Amino acid sequence: MEPRWHARLADPTGGDEPAVNVPTASAPIGVFDSGVGGLTVLRALCTQLPGESFVYLGDTARLPYGTKSAATVTRYSLKAAEALAAYGVKCLVVACNTVSAFALPAIRGHMGAVPVVGVIEPGAEAACSASRSGHIAVIATEGTVRRGAYQAAILRLRNHARVSAQPAALLVALAEEGVCSGAIAESIARHYLAPLFRADLPGSPPDTLVLGCTHFPMLSEAISAVLPSQVAVVDSATTTAAQVYSVLATAGLLKPAGSAACAGAPAVRFLATDDAGRFARVGSRFLQRLIAAAEVELIDL
Amino acid sequence: MEPRWHARLADPTGGDEPAVNVPTASAPIGVFDSGVGGLTVLRALCTQLPGESFVYLGDTARLPYGTKSAATVTRYSLKAAEALAAYGVKCLVVACNTVSAFALPAIRGHMGAVPVVGVIEPGAEAACSASRSGHIAVIATEGTVRRGAYQAAILRLRNHARVSAQPAALLVALAEEGVCSGAIAESIARHYLAPLFRADLPGSPPDTLVLGCTHFPMLSEAISAVLPSQVAVVDSATTTAAQVYSVLATAGLLKPAGSAACAGAPAVRFLATDDAGRFARVGSRFLQRLIAAAEVELIDL
Repeated sequence: MEPRWHARLADPTGGDEPAVNVPTASAPIGVFDSGVGGLTVLRALCTQLPGESFVYLGDTARLPYGTKSAATVTRYSLKAAEALAAYGVKCLVVACNTVSAFALPAIRGHMGAVPVVGVIEPGAEAACSASRSGHIAVIATEGTVRRGAYQAAILRLRNHARVSAQPAALLVALAEEGVCSGAIAESIARHYLAPLFRADLPGSPPDTLVLGCTHFPMLSEAISAVLPSQVAVVDSATTTAAQVYSVLATAGLLKPAGSAACAGAPAVRFLATDDAGRFARVGSRFLQRLIAAAEVELIDL
Repeated sequence: MEPRWHARLADPTGGDEPAVNVPTASAPIGVFDSGVGGLTVLRALCTQLPGESFVYLGDTARLPYGTKSAATVTRYSLKAAEALAAYGVKCLVVACNTVSAFALPAIRGHMGAVPVVGVIEPGAEAACSASRSGHIAVIATEGTVRRGAYQAAILRLRNHARVSAQPAALLVALAEEGVCSGAIAESIARHYLAPLFRADLPGSPPDTLVLGCTHFPMLSEAISAVLPSQVAVVDSATTTAAQVYSVLATAGLLKPAGSAACAGAPAVRFLATDDAGRFARVGSRFLQRLIAAAEVELIDL
């Protein structure tokens, strides 16, 4: 496919001249994740922006990012952003919390005029709207928690908030494996959540839980089963899609009404860096629609 | 560090001339794994070959390999083998079941005269020695099971054996997370093992279980707790170390007795491709001795 660049692509061999891309309304929206987790965000985007087309890239050859260092996550993310830039995307959605936590400024530096939307700010917004008490719990990958990304984003929005964050690595593996409800999923959810909601901690317990990893909405049944009933559960998907809508509308980049190819689901082009069959199989559960292996194009970053 | 090559290194840019390395007895033994799992094999090597020195490489920037395709695993493995070849290793131990399942011939093709020992054949040997009935169960990564690597290796040794294999991805995440015993570990072990040992299956149940992933020995307590008591549990570590000893002895490559630097633990140089701190922290549990972050050198493949 011919890149729809007006000038030239960023130099993937390491030059630091940023890419120059002038976004147009007819172009697709790029969505990037370390693997299939971001498909939960793509689902919300398809619902809220049914007239748009999408290019989704999952870096399945190097997932997961959640246990990797900031330097490595940034290096991988820039390569993925460059690959999506070559598809002439008009907006880049970073549908991965770990990448959003570590690499947004670097990605923005590479994407020129193309707006870049991460999932941490929208997730923090959803949490602040939902919380009455201002005590918010976050579960996320090791990297996202270590970076303090949700903590900082929530405090920027609500400076007297209290944030309790907990890395929850096994939940990623559970969601990938499809063990999303039942006794095993609940016992692991309890393992991570119980310390956040212990009755003997000082102050009032959190009244809101942020699912700070795009895998976690897959486990919402198990998570709700072990949470105190009054706790609100929020994730980034819906608020991220709303923010993408708002960014595109402001920039005059929404596709004209009536230009959707058909009345059905939006057109999505799936790219992965490894194993189209596995992407299709596991991804179908995350997107809640069948992805055929033949729909998934393998690319090398 | 100056590579101890007698001729020249393989061309990492893709030329397919194999590396030419003439192994010498004084050189270290190279050990390669996708991450920290192979440290369970290194531990057995240190016990059986206390006079040797080792270079251990964990490709932590791209782990896990167990869910990735044969092509990707092979590509990553060749880069790791080339990196270890540059340390002049006299033998390369592939301490990762997934790599052993997919990439041994390719690695051997790149290592010239340096013997390459995988973990599947030694694991199959241990299983065939332990099993009376010839019905052997294997738990391993998705890649190792899909490849049929243990199944083939066991049938080569014992052609009337019956092998029941089960991928067990969550056990890898559990071992990395340090949830190695207790109710959660046991419930997940039961999730994978119960289908292999169901009483209503035709024929006699397996009498031997192979831990076909180097992470799984970390969970041996939980695994034993949910297994029928008469089932023997074997892994590759001890038999792999024995095979390395035998290969080196046959080739006259054992370090001369008395050449060990000190009477304590063998010298190990740790290399990782990402996050020295995490390698040290998680790896200490796997090696059962403290690894300091400062001992871990970061390299790029």
